[in-house]
Amino acid sequence: MNKYSDISNGISNYMVEVGKRARAASRIISCAETRDKDAALLAIATALEADEMSLIAANKLDMEAGKALGLKPALLDRLELTSKDIREMVQSLLEVAACHDPVGEITELRYRPSGIQVGRMRVPIGVIGVIYESRPNVTAGAAALCLKAGNAAILRGGSEAFNSNHAIAACIQQGLAISKLPGDAVQMLGTADRSAVGDLIRMSEYIDVIIPRGGRSLIERISRDATVPVIKHMDGICHVYIDDRADFNKAIAVAYNAKTQRYGTCNTMETLLIAEGISEQILPVLVQMYRDAGVEVRGCNQTCKFLSGIKMAIEDDWYTEYLAPILAVRVVKDIEEAISHISKYGSSHTDAIITQDYGRARRFLREVDSSSVMVNASTRFADGGEFGFGAEIGISTGKLHVRGPVGLEGLTTLKFIVIGDGHIRI
Amino acid sequence: MNKYSDISNGISNYMVEVGKRARAASRIISCAETRDKDAALLAIATALEADEMSLIAANKLDMEAGKALGLKPALLDRLELTSKDIREMVQSLLEVAACHDPVGEITELRYRPSGIQVGRMRVPIGVIGVIYESRPNVTAGAAALCLKAGNAAILRGGSEAFNSNHAIAACIQQGLAISKLPGDAVQMLGTADRSAVGDLIRMSEYIDVIIPRGGRSLIERISRDATVPVIKHMDGICHVYIDDRADFNKAIAVAYNAKTQRYGTCNTMETLLIAEGISEQILPVLVQMYRDAGVEVRGCNQTCKFLSGIKMAIEDDWYTEYLAPILAVRVVKDIEEAISHISKYGSSHTDAIITQDYGRARRFLREVDSSSVMVNASTRFADGGEFGFGAEIGISTGKLHVRGPVGLEGLTTLKFIVIGDGHIRI
Repeated sequence: MNKYSDISNGISNYMVEVGKRARAASRIISCAETRDKDAALLAIATALEADEMSLIAANKLDMEAGKALGLKPALLDRLELTSKDIREMVQSLLEVAACHDPVGEITELRYRPSGIQVGRMRVPIGVIGVIYESRPNVTAGAAALCLKAGNAAILRGGSEAFNSNHAIAACIQQGLAISKLPGDAVQMLGTADRSAVGDLIRMSEYIDVIIPRGGRSLIERISRDATVPVIKHMDGICHVYIDDRADFNKAIAVAYNAKTQRYGTCNTMETLLIAEGISEQILPVLVQMYRDAGVEVRGCNQTCKFLSGIKMAIEDDWYTEYLAPILAVRVVKDIEEAISHISKYGSSHTDAIITQDYGRARRFLREVDSSSVMVNASTRFADGGEFGFGAEIGISTGKLHVRGPVGLEGLTTLKFIVIGDGHIRI
Repeated sequence: MNKYSDISNGISNYMVEVGKRARAASRIISCAETRDKDAALLAIATALEADEMSLIAANKLDMEAGKALGLKPALLDRLELTSKDIREMVQSLLEVAACHDPVGEITELRYRPSGIQVGRMRVPIGVIGVIYESRPNVTAGAAALCLKAGNAAILRGGSEAFNSNHAIAACIQQGLAISKLPGDAVQMLGTADRSAVGDLIRMSEYIDVIIPRGGRSLIERISRDATVPVIKHMDGICHVYIDDRADFNKAIAVAYNAKTQRYGTCNTMETLLIAEGISEQILPVLVQMYRDAGVEVRGCNQTCKFLSGIKMAIEDDWYTEYLAPILAVRVVKDIEEAISHISKYGSSHTDAIITQDYGRARRFLREVDSSSVMVNASTRFADGGEFGFGAEIGISTGKLHVRGPVGLEGLTTLKFIVIGDGHIRI
C-alpha cells in the first residue's frame, strides 16, 4: 500500500488530501502508454498469485470478525476469498490487459467547409470513486478497469472486508511500483469511517464520477446525497414477452433460460408476459418446467383461470425484482399491452421479445426504452463479458453517459480535436 | 399554447402535472417518424413568420416592463426581438429540420461467439428541462433540437421575457398541432414563480436531464441544488499557446482572430501563452495589433520587461473569463509549462497550440484535457455550427455524457440491442 495520506487531522482533511493525490495521479495515468498500463496489470496479477497465502490469511481475519458480528451466511459467502477467487481475479486482470486500449482513439475526423478538420478523441474521465460492499474481488477488478482506461481510482470497500481489501491493495501497489506508474493512481481509503463516503461523493473538485456497487439502499443513499455524477445500477426487473407469432421451441428455450440459468443476477427475467393467442399452448408446458426446476409461479387472473395451483400475483409482484426462484406471469392482449406493461412496471434494464414477426421485432427494438433490448435471445446475455467488453465494472440503469454493461469504454469520454493550418474564423 | 396544467393547486402539484404530461408525450415523440418531426419544425417556422407582428408586440410588453424595472442596457439588448431575430429563428428551425435524424441509428452490430448479434441504437434521452435567461430566441431553438432528437421539452425562460416566450410557444403549439404531434412535447412553464425551478431540477421521476443556459450564478445554483443530471456550461477560459516552433504568420493570424473576432463569446481566447524563444519576435507585433483593435493587454513580469506601457497581470487574471477586450499574456518556458498553466488555470473549454512541430502538436492534443483541443486553429471554431451540428443547445464543460458543443447527438443516448434466433446463455 502507498503511504496513506495523514488521517490524524480529521476525515475531511484526509479526504481532500486523497482527492488531490488522485487528481495529480490522473494527469500522469491519463497519458500513460498502453504498454506501461498493461505491464502494471500483469505485475499486479503476479503479485496476487505470489501473495495468495497472505491474502487468504487477511480474509480469514475479516471472516472471523464477520462471524463474531453475526453477519448472515449470504454475506459471509460473498466476503470469503478462496484460492479459486484469487485465480479468477488474476484471470480478469489478464483479460483487461488483453483488451484494446480505448484511450486516444480518434474517430469521425472530417474536413469542414472552413478547411479545419474536426474529430473526437476518446479520453479518460479523470478520477473515479468506487464504493462497494462485501466482495473483495471488486478491489482488483475495479482498479484494473479504471487503470486501463487511464483513470485514477479511489476505492472504498465495505468495512467488513477491510483486511482483505487492503491485502489486495498492497498487491496493486506492488504492480504500480514495478511498472513505474504513480501509486496514487489507485488509492484504497485508509479508514472505515462512514463520513469518508459522505465527503467522497461531494468532492466535485477532485472526483469526476462515483460508481456505487451494492444493494439498493446503498445506491439510493449515494444518489440522494452525491453532487458528483453517479453511474448507478438500480433494479433489474427484466421481462420476456412471448408474442403470439413466436416459435414454440425458441419461446420455451429462451423463457426457461432467462429465469432458471441463474436466479440472483440482475439480468434474470422476473416477469413473463405472454400473448393471449399463444398462452394456452405455451403456459402449461412452461409452467410445468418451472415447477420441476423449483420456481414458484405467481400468475395474473387469466393465468390462474386455466392453470390450477398457481398463486395469484398482486400488483406489487409486477414491481418486484425477486432475485430468487419466483416468477410473475401475465397474459397480455398483444405487443401493445406488453410494451405498456414494461414501460409501467419495468426498470429499463433488459427486456426481450420472442417473435418470428419482422414488424413486431422491429417495433419492440425501437419502442422499449431499456438499456438492453433483445429479440429472440435470453435476457441473461446482458453482460459485459457476453457483449464483448472483456470485463464490466457494473451495469448502468441510468440514461446519461452510459447505459447497460459498463466496460472500459464507459470509463472514458470524448473530447473534440480540431486540426488546422493557421485557420481563423471569419 | 396548450391548455396549461392547473396551477391553482399550488406550484408543486402543477409541476408534477407538467412532468407527467412531458413523460407521456416523450413516449410518443421518441418513436415519431422523422417526416412528422420535420413537418412540425417547418410548421413552427411558418407560424413564426406569420405571427411576426404579434411576436414583436409581445416583446414590446417585455421591453417596456424591463425598462420600467431598470434593466441594464445589455440585458435589454438580449431581450429584444427584432424582425431579423425572427428571421434567424426561422432559419435555425429549417436547419434543424434539414439535419439527419440521429434517433434509431444502429452502430457496431457485431456477431458474438455465442451467436447473438450485439449493437447499439441511438435513442432519445426522454424529457429535457431547459432553464434559460433573457434571449427569447432560445425558446424556438431549444424546442427544435429537443423535438428533432425525439425528446419532450419543458422550457423555463426568464420572467423578464415572459410575454415573448409565450408568444413563441404559441407558434410551437400551432406547429405541433398541424403535424399531429402531442402538444405536451414542448411545454413552456405557465408561471414565473421561482419555486417552479426548484421543483423542476429535482423531479428525477419525470425529467432526465436539465440544461441551464445563462450566467454563472444561475448555473452554479442549479448544479448545487439539482438531483436531476445537469449538462452545464461553465466558464470558457480559453488559451492559445504559441510554441517556439510556430509559423510566424499563422501564429499572428490565429492569436489575433481568437481574441478579436468576437469578445463576448465563451470560445474567445482570454489568455495568450507564448514560448520564451519566440516571444520577443512575436509579442511586439501582436500587442501592437491588439492595441490598435482596442484590446487591453495585461502581461506577466517578463512581458512587461520588454514591452512598455503594459499593465501587470495579477494572479486573478489567469483565472478570469473577461468576455471583453482584455487579454492576459504570459511568457512560458516551453510546451510543458504551457500545459501546466492550462491545467491549473483553464476551464477545460477550448485550448489551442500554434506549432509546426509534429511531436508537440501530437502531445498537446493528447495531454490537454479540454472539451475542444486545437492545433493551428482559432479557438473561435469551437461552435456547433462550425463543427457541423447544424445547431447547438449549448456547450458542455462537464466531462460526462457530452463535452463541447451539444447538438442533436448530445440530446440522445445509446441503448444496446441484441438480435438472436432463440439463443440461450449456457
